[in-house]
Amino acid sequence: MREKGELVEGMYTRVDHALLTSFVSDVLVKLGVPPGDASITAENLVKADLRGIESHGVARLKRYTDGIKNGVVNVNPQIKVVRQSPVTALLDGDSGLGQVVSHRAMSLAIEKAKGNYVGLVGVRNSNHFGIAGFYGLMALRQDLIGLVMTNTRPLVAHTFSRQKLVGTNPICVAVPTSGRGFVLDMATSVAPIGKLEVAKRIGKKVPIGWGIDTDGNLTDDPDKISKGSLLPLGGLGEMLGGHKGYGLGAVVDIFSGVLTGAQWSSGVGETQGPAPADVGHFFGAINVEAFMDLPEFKSRMDQLIAKLKGAELLPGAEEIYVAGEKSYYTEDVRRKAGVALDAKTMEMLKQLGADVGVPFQAGK
Amino acid sequence: MREKGELVEGMYTRVDHALLTSFVSDVLVKLGVPPGDASITAENLVKADLRGIESHGVARLKRYTDGIKNGVVNVNPQIKVVRQSPVTALLDGDSGLGQVVSHRAMSLAIEKAKGNYVGLVGVRNSNHFGIAGFYGLMALRQDLIGLVMTNTRPLVAHTFSRQKLVGTNPICVAVPTSGRGFVLDMATSVAPIGKLEVAKRIGKKVPIGWGIDTDGNLTDDPDKISKGSLLPLGGLGEMLGGHKGYGLGAVVDIFSGVLTGAQWSSGVGETQGPAPADVGHFFGAINVEAFMDLPEFKSRMDQLIAKLKGAELLPGAEEIYVAGEKSYYTEDVRRKAGVALDAKTMEMLKQLGADVGVPFQAGK
Repeated sequence: MREKGELVEGMYTRVDHALLTSFVSDVLVKLGVPPGDASITAENLVKADLRGIESHGVARLKRYTDGIKNGVVNVNPQIKVVRQSPVTALLDGDSGLGQVVSHRAMSLAIEKAKGNYVGLVGVRNSNHFGIAGFYGLMALRQDLIGLVMTNTRPLVAHTFSRQKLVGTNPICVAVPTSGRGFVLDMATSVAPIGKLEVAKRIGKKVPIGWGIDTDGNLTDDPDKISKGSLLPLGGLGEMLGGHKGYGLGAVVDIFSGVLTGAQWSSGVGETQGPAPADVGHFFGAINVEAFMDLPEFKSRMDQLIAKLKGAELLPGAEEIYVAGEKSYYTEDVRRKAGVALDAKTMEMLKQLGADVGVPFQAGK
Repeated sequence: MREKGELVEGMYTRVDHALLTSFVSDVLVKLGVPPGDASITAENLVKADLRGIESHGVARLKRYTDGIKNGVVNVNPQIKVVRQSPVTALLDGDSGLGQVVSHRAMSLAIEKAKGNYVGLVGVRNSNHFGIAGFYGLMALRQDLIGLVMTNTRPLVAHTFSRQKLVGTNPICVAVPTSGRGFVLDMATSVAPIGKLEVAKRIGKKVPIGWGIDTDGNLTDDPDKISKGSLLPLGGLGEMLGGHKGYGLGAVVDIFSGVLTGAQWSSGVGETQGPAPADVGHFFGAINVEAFMDLPEFKSRMDQLIAKLKGAELLPGAEEIYVAGEKSYYTEDVRRKAGVALDAKTMEMLKQLGADVGVPFQAGK
């Protein structure tokens, strides 16, 4: 079955999202994660699968469990407020799960925005936090504008470099509407690493422009790009604006890593270890009411979306989307039909479950 | 003469930047602009020429003077604070010169950030404000992080649209360092409209990927793109991330236009008229000290820049730059050698000067 907004490549099995969430949560609990924290982490991972971002979904669970087993992810972090003002805070995540630390940080940003119109919260000593959109949606549920950034391990060769020193450093901006909201959630590279991993897994070429090999040549071979580098949004060189994607990626590293005291550039580690990743994040929540009454704002957002969607179509195009719309379509399909897991992910989940004594029930 | 970081295409005359600033200011004063406001506007326009963004420099003066003559730009605006909190404000620019209104708005954001760590100021009823970097540099001079956005008249066809309903909607992020700072100042389109205008003026083709003709086909003809549309950063369709540039352009319109009560999308007018442009802007200033002591932050920024600049070079590349660096090189050259004005701009300035009785002294 393939419906509007849902794109699945290769073979997969449908798995009920609620069962999957319980399974992931139970595995984490068995590894010592407190139930509430395990639940947040499981919801974050399954949300990625529901929204069609498989690369950030349960397929990554082993990286988290490896990090816990290796002792680099702290299952009982003492998350500390290092600095604070009525509208800002800096948190130290004490090497906790990125989802747990980030949920705390965005909750604090939301609280500040509700009381004082703005909340900006930086985070250091964290780990991979899953999809940025998860935290943007937290702000959206409170009718606030949400802003999310995180640095990642280095994967992108910046303009005129053949060395990867910038992460795929995503940005999420979530904005309330009368409907489900405008949710931009994008890596600042042309393509995210996850799409490259999917192409490798199913043996497909990728478009020229996504990345370069170790010699700095453009290639459509995902293996060569994995050894080489992804490219910043705008591509190779400056001709089509690659320096802009590079600049945006650097801005994300500045807010997430430099400003928070976390690692940055090649210093950012991996959640599975061997050393603590010390990932940095940055969260913002902005109360629309500082500028305009919420109902008026939502009505204006609805008009903007209607205008953009109603534009004359490019020949051959079927529909114009706004940010987040495709993910909502995919989520609608998958809440009913189940999320789509490939064979390798299914096998990994079964093994992880067997290791800790949690049976994996698959299939719809 | 062509030095590092300075690129001038076509024929041009060198003009002393200080003389040029006085001239522009004098012309505006003759048209009724108060001297202080005229001076801010002149500095903004000449700063663009100094930094190598000729498209936003004095070449645009006639659009401003036409706007004043047509009565759509208000030379004595009553700029009002519509809403305010310790960290936010909404200003109504009363159709004043974009530079005057924006200088006021960024000054207010800076004041708030100094007192309360954060200042976010939205603006409606304004006009074209010149280069975004000008206001980012204001924050930088106060050792604050500066954030600037503005919407523009619609020039970009968003993903799967052949109609232009999104502006080139630039973003500036300026970050303090021990040196001159990191200053990202970018249109969210592949190329800004100014570069297209320059190509038209000197009869050059542009790279495939900058824009489409009225039928939605990619073209290297700047005339056809002018009639058609520019493309969002990431280009045509979704394959190389065009939906990301579109998303960023929409975010700028949301903050600048939707949230402030200004016009948005195709509603944004032109500074020369016939109707008030009602451009919207959004300014932010963030005090680094909310998260980290300033000296430590600057030292970390210096390390980031050294790391990025020190990367292994792509074959054929000569140097890696960080955001704003090329503009500083160009400014260094032009402060001594003079800014570079083309014949059409020279002629226009002479005529404008003659019209109001201000002699235009050119040449170095």
